[in-house]
Amino acid sequence: MDSNHTPLKHADAATALLALLASLLAPLSASAVEPKNPQQSVPTAAAACAACHGQWGEGNVATGFPRLQGLPAVYQVGQLEAFADGTRQNPVMTPLAQSLSASERVQLADYYAALVARTRGPGSAPSTHDEQLAVRGRWSEDIPGCVQCHGENGSGIGAAFPPLAGQPAAYLAAQLQAWQQGTRRGEPLGLMQRIAKQLSAMDVSAVADYFSAIPAGGKAPAAAPVPGSAPQAAPAAATAPGTAGGARGQGVFAPADTPIPDDGFGKVIQLGRNIFDNPVRYAGRYVGNDLRCTSCHLDEGRRVGSAPMWAAYVSYPAYRAKNGHVNTFAERLQGCFRYSMNGRPPPLGDPVLVALESYSYWMARGAPVDPNIAGRGYVKPPKPALAPDRARGAVAYGEKCALCHGERGEGRSANDGSPGFPALWGGDSYNWGAGMVNVANAAAFIKSNMPFSQGGTLTDQEAWDLALFVDAHERPQDPRYAGSVEATRAKFHDGDNSLYGQSVDGRVLGSHSPPPGGRLREHAAASAGN
Amino acid sequence: MDSNHTPLKHADAATALLALLASLLAPLSASAVEPKNPQQSVPTAAAACAACHGQWGEGNVATGFPRLQGLPAVYQVGQLEAFADGTRQNPVMTPLAQSLSASERVQLADYYAALVARTRGPGSAPSTHDEQLAVRGRWSEDIPGCVQCHGENGSGIGAAFPPLAGQPAAYLAAQLQAWQQGTRRGEPLGLMQRIAKQLSAMDVSAVADYFSAIPAGGKAPAAAPVPGSAPQAAPAAATAPGTAGGARGQGVFAPADTPIPDDGFGKVIQLGRNIFDNPVRYAGRYVGNDLRCTSCHLDEGRRVGSAPMWAAYVSYPAYRAKNGHVNTFAERLQGCFRYSMNGRPPPLGDPVLVALESYSYWMARGAPVDPNIAGRGYVKPPKPALAPDRARGAVAYGEKCALCHGERGEGRSANDGSPGFPALWGGDSYNWGAGMVNVANAAAFIKSNMPFSQGGTLTDQEAWDLALFVDAHERPQDPRYAGSVEATRAKFHDGDNSLYGQSVDGRVLGSHSPPPGGRLREHAAASAGN
Repeated sequence: MDSNHTPLKHADAATALLALLASLLAPLSASAVEPKNPQQSVPTAAAACAACHGQWGEGNVATGFPRLQGLPAVYQVGQLEAFADGTRQNPVMTPLAQSLSASERVQLADYYAALVARTRGPGSAPSTHDEQLAVRGRWSEDIPGCVQCHGENGSGIGAAFPPLAGQPAAYLAAQLQAWQQGTRRGEPLGLMQRIAKQLSAMDVSAVADYFSAIPAGGKAPAAAPVPGSAPQAAPAAATAPGTAGGARGQGVFAPADTPIPDDGFGKVIQLGRNIFDNPVRYAGRYVGNDLRCTSCHLDEGRRVGSAPMWAAYVSYPAYRAKNGHVNTFAERLQGCFRYSMNGRPPPLGDPVLVALESYSYWMARGAPVDPNIAGRGYVKPPKPALAPDRARGAVAYGEKCALCHGERGEGRSANDGSPGFPALWGGDSYNWGAGMVNVANAAAFIKSNMPFSQGGTLTDQEAWDLALFVDAHERPQDPRYAGSVEATRAKFHDGDNSLYGQSVDGRVLGSHSPPPGGRLREHAAASAGN
Repeated sequence: MDSNHTPLKHADAATALLALLASLLAPLSASAVEPKNPQQSVPTAAAACAACHGQWGEGNVATGFPRLQGLPAVYQVGQLEAFADGTRQNPVMTPLAQSLSASERVQLADYYAALVARTRGPGSAPSTHDEQLAVRGRWSEDIPGCVQCHGENGSGIGAAFPPLAGQPAAYLAAQLQAWQQGTRRGEPLGLMQRIAKQLSAMDVSAVADYFSAIPAGGKAPAAAPVPGSAPQAAPAAATAPGTAGGARGQGVFAPADTPIPDDGFGKVIQLGRNIFDNPVRYAGRYVGNDLRCTSCHLDEGRRVGSAPMWAAYVSYPAYRAKNGHVNTFAERLQGCFRYSMNGRPPPLGDPVLVALESYSYWMARGAPVDPNIAGRGYVKPPKPALAPDRARGAVAYGEKCALCHGERGEGRSANDGSPGFPALWGGDSYNWGAGMVNVANAAAFIKSNMPFSQGGTLTDQEAWDLALFVDAHERPQDPRYAGSVEATRAKFHDGDNSLYGQSVDGRVLGSHSPPPGGRLREHAAASAGN
């Protein structure tokens, strides 16, 4: 694309503009923004950037010029290209980006990416409304919490989901407005454009304030408490009654979205919610991968179409063919740890189970006790016209899924190491005993919920093809392993919907299960004295 | 009363009548009815009885003449007196009874009481409607199941509640009709008169058939299954929708009274119901006394005013000040075993707890999940005008309670040894940790439910006086005993409503707790190989 314009001419105009802008800017205090590693060699072109983005790429809160420190290089290069070709429109950046050669872009991006941001110290605490949208989203309009794609501390995930933490509020707000107005485009799957267009001015301001207050590279100022400490008061309802909480369709129960009380019961409910959002942090010794409860139960367990927890709560005790006896709700929860989280079931009565049961109870208040409650489980799509096909599934996966879950289904952690998008196969994913191994379940989940925030947009055929493709990969062994793959299949996997024990590309699935990921061992070690 | 008539004259008439009757009766097969111990000396007057009641007092099914074998002597003497003075009117028995002297009555009664009835072998199985009324009652009209006062096998309890098992159906029906018509009266507290008057002709026939089919001294033909065996199908609803199941008042939830399904879940629900009705039999290794779940939770846990289980189910998990943490429903159930049943809590996940949770869930179907559900717990009566008084309570106890619970609060077993009326104090009662130790709770329970089947008839003052009187007696030690009565009181019993650690008649309650009754040891021994 660089061949389409004349860099020098644009560079002249840009230089003049930068001089003007620089003269308007108050000097920045270097001591507050100097990165931890400023000694690396500075690309020549960085001088132009520094005028607005600061000497160390620290950005400018007052003017809203974004921080570049620590932004992923691939993301920065992509943005410079987008400025250059007009996909992202900005009167200052467009000519500047057009003036840079491809190698200059890479140099600049590598430079700023390598600078480690200093923690600015705690910012102002976010308001309740800020946190509600940033952390939990508004699923009644299919808006996920920002952190669900940008990392729990806004540290960003991979190249496609840039860090938000510590960016100037004005910059963040301007970007959301740019998505709204179409002057910023080109993001994968059109994710941001659709979401931004549903945000009110107050929403934009709220999330911009929220992330600007998080130290870059630091933790969210209103970090959730550790178990046993005082709970974080839950946000008040930010959505109108009747639209809250993922209710879909007439006559379907919608859990009340009232604040969790600050009392003895409320503390346990809040702990349950924290575990639900982040089992690695709050129940680490029982989990063996990075899945969260919210990975399968969207909107913190509220959403119809993703096995909402209020519906599960009123459906147990129940007889389960899976294990041939009546399961209490607590035992059902144990199954999630053992299979989906590839971990260890907390013992009955463990505070982790009591908290999750309490949180689910809290959500279910007002729902009728009813094993057939509308909205329970997944919404099964009809069998597609064509038999599900792995090859078609692989293509669709590359187009729609790999962005978040990785080309090899390995998932993606956030840039600060916190759990990001879950692995779909391999050692870090759910094991062969999980419900999602059932292709029909997986197809149902995918149809209702994937791509994330765009549930319902895939065809039934795509959902089935994807489910087959995903579940035709190796994953950790079934914990009920009965001595041989054949015996295990006969006992637990008979039927059309499990690929366990089936031959795929010449290998029998289940016979080369990868070792489980390091999460369980890591947490077992960390909590050895617990 | 014998002084008011002329025995000889009546005896002449009676003799003539008996001769007539005897000539109409087909000879009875002695082999089928001869008691196990026929060798005892026969009172002279028994010849007159034998004409109708059979050579061994075995009764006559065809004519409905009742069985006398094994009937408690006190009961028989009482009935002869009632015939004599017209409280119980019968053209044959009245002149006969009037002809007997007091000592003859005692001789006859002792004779028949001592004859042990032979088991007649299984009778015809009772119909669903029969069992519904006989076993469970119809609490929407305050009608308990017959077995609840006459023993689970109809073997009778004490002198006041005669055996029903094996009596001719015609006799039983005639007695119920006599209560209805007022030709049989004089029973304590007017219990039978009120109940009988609410029975339809079909009801009368049903319960008469039910008990006539139970072998005298045997077990009910439709005995509930032992755990693990196929469940007994639950009776279909015998009451009209809307009046079923103990619902009281507008807007209060009424559990559906549909049959328990005959499937994997239904088996566990039915086991829970069986435990609820008879924990000694179905969960014996965890109970330390003869209380049943239904002792405090009437109508099998359905009744408003006696802490209905459907309301409890939708109220947990909840924080309990009693133990300072959030309790799941399963943990709450453990408390009943530990305190009210003075036993051992089944471990979490034990089939006993799973079954009770499943049964409670079953009852709660359709109820909203709601910690404030109408009908939860006990209905607290207002504080009475006068301070509660033990002396007044003692008088009321003698008048209203001792009939069933015994003069010394020791309870009464059925004549066949099965649990009857629960002990209210002493070693066989609930221990000092039970909720019923709280005088306000006890007053609430008494007001709503006592005398049995006559809930709501006591004044608030009587309920409080009775509660204070009952709870001012010694009982098994609080399992949370903290080294001294003072320390235990300070930790668990502070406040006005517990007498634990208080001085009563010069003795500090809790300091002379009787040893627990033998039930726990007995069952521990019986289930040692379990």
